[in-house]
Amino acid sequence: MASKEITLAFGSGGRLTNELIRDLFVRHFSNKRLNELEDSAVLRLGRERIAFTTDSYVVTPLKFPGGDIGRIAVCGTVNDLAVKGARPLAVSCGFIIEEGLERGTLEEAVVSMKKAAAEAGVEIVTGDTKVVEKGKADKLFINTSGVGLVIPGTAISQKNIRPGDVIIINGEIAAHGVAVLNARNNLGLSGNIKSDAAPLSRMLNGLAVKFPSIRSMRDVTRGGLATVLNEAAQSSGWSMEIEEELIPVSEPVRNACSVLGLDPLYVANEGKAVIFAPEKYASKILSAMKKDKYGKKAAIIGRVLAEKKASLKVRTPIGSERYAVMLEGEQLPRIC
Amino acid sequence: MASKEITLAFGSGGRLTNELIRDLFVRHFSNKRLNELEDSAVLRLGRERIAFTTDSYVVTPLKFPGGDIGRIAVCGTVNDLAVKGARPLAVSCGFIIEEGLERGTLEEAVVSMKKAAAEAGVEIVTGDTKVVEKGKADKLFINTSGVGLVIPGTAISQKNIRPGDVIIINGEIAAHGVAVLNARNNLGLSGNIKSDAAPLSRMLNGLAVKFPSIRSMRDVTRGGLATVLNEAAQSSGWSMEIEEELIPVSEPVRNACSVLGLDPLYVANEGKAVIFAPEKYASKILSAMKKDKYGKKAAIIGRVLAEKKASLKVRTPIGSERYAVMLEGEQLPRIC
Repeated sequence: MASKEITLAFGSGGRLTNELIRDLFVRHFSNKRLNELEDSAVLRLGRERIAFTTDSYVVTPLKFPGGDIGRIAVCGTVNDLAVKGARPLAVSCGFIIEEGLERGTLEEAVVSMKKAAAEAGVEIVTGDTKVVEKGKADKLFINTSGVGLVIPGTAISQKNIRPGDVIIINGEIAAHGVAVLNARNNLGLSGNIKSDAAPLSRMLNGLAVKFPSIRSMRDVTRGGLATVLNEAAQSSGWSMEIEEELIPVSEPVRNACSVLGLDPLYVANEGKAVIFAPEKYASKILSAMKKDKYGKKAAIIGRVLAEKKASLKVRTPIGSERYAVMLEGEQLPRIC
Repeated sequence: MASKEITLAFGSGGRLTNELIRDLFVRHFSNKRLNELEDSAVLRLGRERIAFTTDSYVVTPLKFPGGDIGRIAVCGTVNDLAVKGARPLAVSCGFIIEEGLERGTLEEAVVSMKKAAAEAGVEIVTGDTKVVEKGKADKLFINTSGVGLVIPGTAISQKNIRPGDVIIINGEIAAHGVAVLNARNNLGLSGNIKSDAAPLSRMLNGLAVKFPSIRSMRDVTRGGLATVLNEAAQSSGWSMEIEEELIPVSEPVRNACSVLGLDPLYVANEGKAVIFAPEKYASKILSAMKKDKYGKKAAIIGRVLAEKKASLKVRTPIGSERYAVMLEGEQLPRIC
């Protein structure tokens, strides 16, 4: 059943990535924490509960409007911790450098990591540097891992999602993927499209403290909103429905997606989270989010259905409905 | 002062790596934990002290006698935690895969990680997979990060090293580097030379519990014994002296180094640690180490001098003395 060679699609966050994770990693490494397939593993460490996560960044180009590899390397890891109800405390950095990289390019990434870490309130406490021969890597890859302290009283897990829960997102989707593609291919798209790369920890930590009723939060990166909601549907077992009209997408990004033939639902973000919560708390959560710099355009975009089919439905403005399945691969490779 | 391009030597664990770490990472990320430049950062997390570390593995070839990239990826990280007096609890894995890699090759690495993790008593709890285009990586790179719980009562730090302390190593050095080089270049060296890749956590955790008087422990990997002792000398300020005759090197490895023009003191290991302890505990520590599978050939190899010059002296069998300085780069690139 399995293809014999790893293709780009296996690394894109879609169905093939999920298949690889389940077939290779979950099967061999199998343990309670890993098998939950959340953005971070939560584990007991002595008297504390910590969240622990890792991500490698291979984005090309290294810089793009609104961010660079350093910024997303810190934001992505910080956000993975925060969506599990953890306060990010420390981040590690592992650099794999292609021989011949300009030292200034490396320094720019380092300075960008420093700024993002300061914004997120974490320290970069440990690191590693490897250099490989010219042609054996692509300029610079960065791995970051992170540890955080889980806020007491929280129980944030996709398994807790229930029918009737509302789905909230903190702002406009798909900007990151379009910004990277624009920079990579010199498309010259108009409208000043910038990556949304941002550390969401302050906002999400605030929500976790204030609303222990929040069921689940997920970082919406590779594969976009549709992929993350499909994963949440699969993990919880419940179907979900979102309304196309309610999903925030900026006009320039919508136009760019239309020109490029991309579905914004599947385009990567680096500063977006979805929140699942009982409906009765929805408006309070929404107002709390709107007070944060990165939540001003937060919106309720859908709900969890009382249907055990683990599917994602999209209601269109004209009232019709379609299924948004998990794609085989990403529409765009090396976006993060 | 700084070269404008990153060369292979910057990633080899020698003087240039140290210079890069200090000039870029310590300068920009500066914080108490990072600046200690130990194998793991130790940080307070709620009511606990944890150790946190990261390493990327870019070894070529992926398999070699005595180990493979998967085994060293787990052992290296576990050992980095254990030398700081921490019980390794959880490891993350970040895979960067070159498009076209055989799935079977990836699976072999995964299975090897699983076995090493089982031996070390840790779980691999979280991971990430990225795939880059053919020619943009070299088959497979693996990052592992790890967290561990610091054993209460321990205060293991290079800063604690004192004149008169003895230096103990757990066995024969330089096998890893020679085994990888042999496999890489089909040198056909005789003597069944195998990498020493091993998780030392059970042995080192036992020592940390039993001997709170241990001052410091260091993982002896890239750059070999001479580099790690130079780093310890720099961090503590004290000069150190080792006796060439006392340093365990297997006969085949010694012969191979001689043929290849390598100094075993600078060749990488993946299952070696040096321990600094007051002399009066030395024989007890040594007996405890010899009871462990990975400590049978443990030996006292030198001592810390009452001389604030931060240098490393090597006494030869004929009674002469030479300085073993930190090399610019590794003798061998991509050894781990």
